Amino acid sequence: MSGEDTLRGYRGFVRRKLEEAGVRVWSMVRVTTSGATYEGILLPRSELGNGNHIVLKLKTGYNVGVKVTEETVIEEIGYSPGHYVLPEKKVEFKPGKPLVSMIGTGGTVASRLDYRTGAVIPAFTPQELFSAVPELEEICNLEMISLFEIFSEDMQPEYWVRIAEKVAEEINRGVDGVIIAHGTDTMHFTSAALSFMLKNLPVPVILVGSQRSSDRPSSDAAMNLISSALVAAKSDIAEVVVCMHGSSSDDYNIIHRGTRVRKMHTSRRDAFRTIGDIPLGVVAKGVIRMLRSDYKRRSEHRKVTVDSKLDPKVVLLYTYPGMQPDIVENVVNADYHGIVLAGTGLGHCPRAIIPSLKRAIKDGVAVAMTSQCLYGFVGMNVYERGRDLLSLGVIPCGNMLPETAYVKLIYVLGHTRDINEVREMMTHNMCGELTSGEPYNAYLILQGGLESAAEK
Amino acid sequence: MSGEDTLRGYRGFVRRKLEEAGVRVWSMVRVTTSGATYEGILLPRSELGNGNHIVLKLKTGYNVGVKVTEETVIEEIGYSPGHYVLPEKKVEFKPGKPLVSMIGTGGTVASRLDYRTGAVIPAFTPQELFSAVPELEEICNLEMISLFEIFSEDMQPEYWVRIAEKVAEEINRGVDGVIIAHGTDTMHFTSAALSFMLKNLPVPVILVGSQRSSDRPSSDAAMNLISSALVAAKSDIAEVVVCMHGSSSDDYNIIHRGTRVRKMHTSRRDAFRTIGDIPLGVVAKGVIRMLRSDYKRRSEHRKVTVDSKLDPKVVLLYTYPGMQPDIVENVVNADYHGIVLAGTGLGHCPRAIIPSLKRAIKDGVAVAMTSQCLYGFVGMNVYERGRDLLSLGVIPCGNMLPETAYVKLIYVLGHTRDINEVREMMTHNMCGELTSGEPYNAYLILQGGLESAAEK
Repeated sequence: MSGEDTLRGYRGFVRRKLEEAGVRVWSMVRVTTSGATYEGILLPRSELGNGNHIVLKLKTGYNVGVKVTEETVIEEIGYSPGHYVLPEKKVEFKPGKPLVSMIGTGGTVASRLDYRTGAVIPAFTPQELFSAVPELEEICNLEMISLFEIFSEDMQPEYWVRIAEKVAEEINRGVDGVIIAHGTDTMHFTSAALSFMLKNLPVPVILVGSQRSSDRPSSDAAMNLISSALVAAKSDIAEVVVCMHGSSSDDYNIIHRGTRVRKMHTSRRDAFRTIGDIPLGVVAKGVIRMLRSDYKRRSEHRKVTVDSKLDPKVVLLYTYPGMQPDIVENVVNADYHGIVLAGTGLGHCPRAIIPSLKRAIKDGVAVAMTSQCLYGFVGMNVYERGRDLLSLGVIPCGNMLPETAYVKLIYVLGHTRDINEVREMMTHNMCGELTSGEPYNAYLILQGGLESAAEK
Repeated sequence: MSGEDTLRGYRGFVRRKLEEAGVRVWSMVRVTTSGATYEGILLPRSELGNGNHIVLKLKTGYNVGVKVTEETVIEEIGYSPGHYVLPEKKVEFKPGKPLVSMIGTGGTVASRLDYRTGAVIPAFTPQELFSAVPELEEICNLEMISLFEIFSEDMQPEYWVRIAEKVAEEINRGVDGVIIAHGTDTMHFTSAALSFMLKNLPVPVILVGSQRSSDRPSSDAAMNLISSALVAAKSDIAEVVVCMHGSSSDDYNIIHRGTRVRKMHTSRRDAFRTIGDIPLGVVAKGVIRMLRSDYKRRSEHRKVTVDSKLDPKVVLLYTYPGMQPDIVENVVNADYHGIVLAGTGLGHCPRAIIPSLKRAIKDGVAVAMTSQCLYGFVGMNVYERGRDLLSLGVIPCGNMLPETAYVKLIYVLGHTRDINEVREMMTHNMCGELTSGEPYNAYLILQGGLESAAEK
């Protein structure tokens, strides 16, 4: 049983260093590297991680991974054991409950779960997870798959394909829903990619992660997992969605369509927001409540396919006053096949880069325009600059988010380089990335309204 | 009087074409160019614009400028005169009222004002403006200066300097406030630039524009002007602010600090939002109500100076999964002096670009990190990627907006290329661009809350 290994999850060189220092998991340690000194509780770690790191829970509530070298000095300065030990609850398959697969990709939701004990526990087996979050057992049978473990900022199109293939494999063997544990940084890129790649989806696919906050460390993980499991097991959605906290309290989760969601805050638990549209639904107090009816429903067929033809030779360029043409020139010279501009306002860019865009388009590069405003539609017929760009052949992307347009252009260019076909595909909705209008109440306001903003 | 010139504002070749077609200002015309056909009302135009265009008000409510060549066919299809003619009201200087300068830079607020008549009128003299918006006359004596007329997406650092110098000149001659009419696309870049450049500001400087919407064309212009005039004439603020609609109705304007504001919507009148902070105040029903007290106050001194040392060799780069190093390599090769990254989450970027960032920093390029989340602080000590970037020398920019950080780095590099001095300046607050924390209620929620989101 894992509780008996006092250096659980540590192997090889790092384990030897820890043994030499006489420390155990749950020891309070001081670690001095060439660059810095850290004090915190030595956490058990997953089997999947990089072997050269130890994981500390700092007083701030954050976990850090510290690279250990021969020179690193590790000292024990305390020990706080006992209630951190996570029992492994025996779980039996319950025939009456839905079967859900949870695919780990390196997100922190499963690996550093903080619940009840206040500790942060790597939980990688259903037994561990059910012990930490007993509500899950009531919801579904859960099978866990560790696909890979990378930082989400290192996600690349080839990982999107691997995730999509694993999701399809699970669905085609009959699971009732799939949860993907994913780092939050780029979760919305991956959710968009899966939306485009997974065809004829018969069940929900939910991306989930955790935003750890220093005051209540990782406390969103349990509720995010429970809500995601509910959506996976019981909702009638058959789309790729993101399911994360809706507020900074543990009161509800939002179900976001995978192509219209964006991480809008660096640290809040309610970082994810549906942009310019109404979310699909909410999960509160264990109940799923749909906010709209225009979503794809579950079906009994089991023939999901992965359309994994991608062309990653695409760049996402943000425009700004003073932008010079060399940025665009380089893209053309480097033989990229697509440029997604996040222009200003209705879809404008500085005059200075227009000759370079013209050259790019002449050279067969697909150039698509989104707005860095994030909310609202590009409107390239309104001003002269927009019309000039349209006449060059720039593809207007409606209200597609810049990140979604980047992913979609990768997908589209994987299928065709014919510019007319590219334009056709980019300007027509595939899975909610383009809508015909923005609901009046889909824009942002101050939390609590103006009254709450005034100094008391 | 202008009403007597039936082709007011048109000169040279374009005027001849219009005369040949027998059309007048306020004619309903059909204009056929090689690429398109437009139908709309021929509007009078300002003296400042490009001479090769005519301005049409389309049925959608938008104005378009159409380039006229010898081949262009212009036909009159109707005429709707009369109530569009704008009387020039005689205005006398009123000694009891504050004096406000309004500097035009090409924004649409003054040039295409839609009020009472439903028409869109270029208004460039105080007489015209007072006629269109009589409330202004009650507020202040207004002097209008047309500095230049360019699209805001073509703003460049050298224009920021010209605006700053004109603002300083006006203040130093004794005006009580300055309004800058500015296109909305890049207004927040300019407001940040002026915030950094104008030193010892004794009076308010207000950037204002209009977001035209097709259903109620340009109807935000009048209220934006009135609110800005109130702030310029009567507020006790001595900072650079943006004053734009706070909601999609004409019920209040928000006074945004110039360094913490961003255009968040392509078309809504309440496009501008203070990000991660509480706005300075609101203007409703002619009354200014401050929401906070930590702003700089008016003073009687008249010695504002312009610190116009800028180094525009800076790029703003958005990171994304799959980003390749060549984008960064090009920046280094092109001898840029600064890179502002809009990274993911707490300030991360793909591993793939790290060697290029390392090279950039070794070559003396200042690399600063902001978050594309827009809300929240970078936290580069939390994860290994962040710590790696810090150890390379990447400068963490707290909760500075990417756009503001871009402008600030241009300002800072104009003063020093010493990387320690750059770091010192970038990481310390100058004018509200960096705050010590984010108010709990400064984050975004759905307008009307969840209840309003549910389908009825």
